[in-house]
Amino acid sequence: MTSNADVDQALIDDFHTLSRFGATAGGGVDRQAGTAADGEQRRWLTNWLTGRGFTVEFDRVGNQFGMLELVPGAPYVIVGSHLDSQPFGGKYDGAYGVLAAAHAVGRLAEKWRSAGHAPLYNLAVVNWFNEEGCRFEPSMMGSSVYTGKLDLDAALNTRDLAGTTVRDALESIDCLGSGVGPTAAFYAEIHIEQGRVLEDTQTTIGLVEATWAARKYHLVVHGEQSHTGSTVMADRKDAILGASYLAVAAREIADRFTDPALHSSVGQMVIEPNSPVVVAREVRMHLDLRSSDEGVLAEANEMLLKRIPEIERLANVRIEQATAHGWGLLAYHPDGVKIAQTASEGLGLSHRPMMTIAGHDSTNMKDIVPTVMLFVPSVEGISHNEGEFTEDSDISAGVDLLTEVVSRLAHGDVSEGLPDGLSTPHITVD
Amino acid sequence: MTSNADVDQALIDDFHTLSRFGATAGGGVDRQAGTAADGEQRRWLTNWLTGRGFTVEFDRVGNQFGMLELVPGAPYVIVGSHLDSQPFGGKYDGAYGVLAAAHAVGRLAEKWRSAGHAPLYNLAVVNWFNEEGCRFEPSMMGSSVYTGKLDLDAALNTRDLAGTTVRDALESIDCLGSGVGPTAAFYAEIHIEQGRVLEDTQTTIGLVEATWAARKYHLVVHGEQSHTGSTVMADRKDAILGASYLAVAAREIADRFTDPALHSSVGQMVIEPNSPVVVAREVRMHLDLRSSDEGVLAEANEMLLKRIPEIERLANVRIEQATAHGWGLLAYHPDGVKIAQTASEGLGLSHRPMMTIAGHDSTNMKDIVPTVMLFVPSVEGISHNEGEFTEDSDISAGVDLLTEVVSRLAHGDVSEGLPDGLSTPHITVD
Repeated sequence: MTSNADVDQALIDDFHTLSRFGATAGGGVDRQAGTAADGEQRRWLTNWLTGRGFTVEFDRVGNQFGMLELVPGAPYVIVGSHLDSQPFGGKYDGAYGVLAAAHAVGRLAEKWRSAGHAPLYNLAVVNWFNEEGCRFEPSMMGSSVYTGKLDLDAALNTRDLAGTTVRDALESIDCLGSGVGPTAAFYAEIHIEQGRVLEDTQTTIGLVEATWAARKYHLVVHGEQSHTGSTVMADRKDAILGASYLAVAAREIADRFTDPALHSSVGQMVIEPNSPVVVAREVRMHLDLRSSDEGVLAEANEMLLKRIPEIERLANVRIEQATAHGWGLLAYHPDGVKIAQTASEGLGLSHRPMMTIAGHDSTNMKDIVPTVMLFVPSVEGISHNEGEFTEDSDISAGVDLLTEVVSRLAHGDVSEGLPDGLSTPHITVD
Repeated sequence: MTSNADVDQALIDDFHTLSRFGATAGGGVDRQAGTAADGEQRRWLTNWLTGRGFTVEFDRVGNQFGMLELVPGAPYVIVGSHLDSQPFGGKYDGAYGVLAAAHAVGRLAEKWRSAGHAPLYNLAVVNWFNEEGCRFEPSMMGSSVYTGKLDLDAALNTRDLAGTTVRDALESIDCLGSGVGPTAAFYAEIHIEQGRVLEDTQTTIGLVEATWAARKYHLVVHGEQSHTGSTVMADRKDAILGASYLAVAAREIADRFTDPALHSSVGQMVIEPNSPVVVAREVRMHLDLRSSDEGVLAEANEMLLKRIPEIERLANVRIEQATAHGWGLLAYHPDGVKIAQTASEGLGLSHRPMMTIAGHDSTNMKDIVPTVMLFVPSVEGISHNEGEFTEDSDISAGVDLLTEVVSRLAHGDVSEGLPDGLSTPHITVD
């Protein structure tokens, strides 16, 4: 699985330094978007970039850009990912992609500077704001605003569960700017796989061809507050019971599909009042369905919508579908996949085409510019967990490849603009 | 249902005044134990009592006593309930019992003072600390410490979900004393029914003969944090799914019993990390089973314990039974029921023997002294809800009866001490 490339020790050392921000006792990190730990790592990145000649700028939604203007006035190849993490998340998710981008662009700049060479496009490193979406919803917030998919004010006015707005959180870490960032011609991102495919197939590089189709439901279960002891069972309108039936239904629906698989989940329930002795009056929850097969997803969606009225009756509750959105199978630009494949071969790195199940900032960027998305292996596929781990040799090989891909993009190996039909915006489901 | 007794307007006015502390927009109250609103209503009660010649004292766990020493050195007839509420709770639960006690004792004191009469026992009004148990567990905390069932330090060191201890909360509202309160010879409490029996049978007074048997389980579902999208279903150890299966099982078990009924509930789930995009690693939850029939309860307990390993397998989680406790059918002193019945008849109030399903501070007190527990009707049985309502005429009739019961207790109509077998302490279930 691991490559034979030499490990870049400066890269690994920087990764260890970065991993100390928000480090948890369990070996992971907790640096949710807009927290003090997020601010500290952003200042560290600013120092790293300015020390190497980059101009650093925060845009109006807190995206952090490190720009190298090599061709005055030309648009940019933007390369990056996100430094924010889940609570008790892993060190690699997002952070690896930002550091890889900084090293890749840094290497190219140094090489071209000493050779007196100029590419066709400028280069920028990006640390997108709030990719994780755990503190502030939705996820991929920074890249959604950058790509025009999310309204700026809606983003800035979003509140966490404690009532703090994105605007206040960004101001508190001094990361709220006023600009819109550099103009992109291309985008590239590298990320750990968050699955077992590369490990199981002993492959170093995943060339991402498409994102799984998904439907995401924000459901509100409306019950009625009453006494857990004295209320007769027939009178209860138990929102926890309704939410529990929904969580079980999501799993039962996933169990109906094997190949192609359906992934389902309920990761959050916000319960009111959540007292041991009160039947809950309300549960707000997220339910996701995902598949590599749009037909499977449509069928699963039907099953879920059929279960909702049954559950309303069983638990004597009302289930409100507050919001729902989704997307079909979303392709990355085939020319981007092609240059990444050629580059992998040039470097002697084993590779395979893949899909991504998780969303990434590249999921947004690929809808506006040709985008390359690369994976390196995750040991045991562990993700959103302190135990996340990727071998140093894979870390290093990924940066070698990213450097080569960025160089090709900067030299116009892929044409600007998207072919017809490639830009599939997210859809709202009624 | 409502009595023909004259309504005591001073009582109703005081009730409206009391209901303003922590008043919610929805017509209820939110004055959880040890909060600012709890402190304010306690100061109001202190003023009310001292203005009528009571000596007010907070004991070492924040129980508030208003004492009238009429017979130097004699033990007390203690009368009261609790002023703390659920979040978005009703105005009547507990608060009515404390105010009724203050008025009943106040009436007797005034009558005896003007007649130059002395009873055999002293009188005290009590506002027990933290009956509700929503902010700090367990419920009935103040009366549990008073009756020696709960260790003082364990109570004072208990933390709410924000990490504040009971000690700090009580100090913040200046309600932490050092004494142990007056010595009880008898206890009396009046409360709204929190059910529909009195309303459905057009009865004004419930004479509580026993508490339903109960088993309470504190369960911890251990899963493993992972990515809600990319983790393959077979690899997931989803704590929310395990908790949901348990909540559904609790309802299914209750549905197996009709007469005698089983009540079951899950009112709280504390979920970690509770992020929309992370499979939960842990859920801490409460599950209760209650019945008027000990055989039904034992059978339901068996069913639940059988379901736990099945659910562990289904959700690929480990379920830890952190604590479990329970009690059998607990009788109130029959002589107390008898004097309350005679007093009801003397006042022309319709009455019936009943059981209480909910726990009350009297559930603790009846294990150490002869105790009388009275109910007045709850419209539609609404409880732990802002919509809780009891008619003014019932409020007033209840105080008339409580006054008469306290007078009889203070004159020795019931003998001191408990008959053999009446004191059934709570049991720990393995």
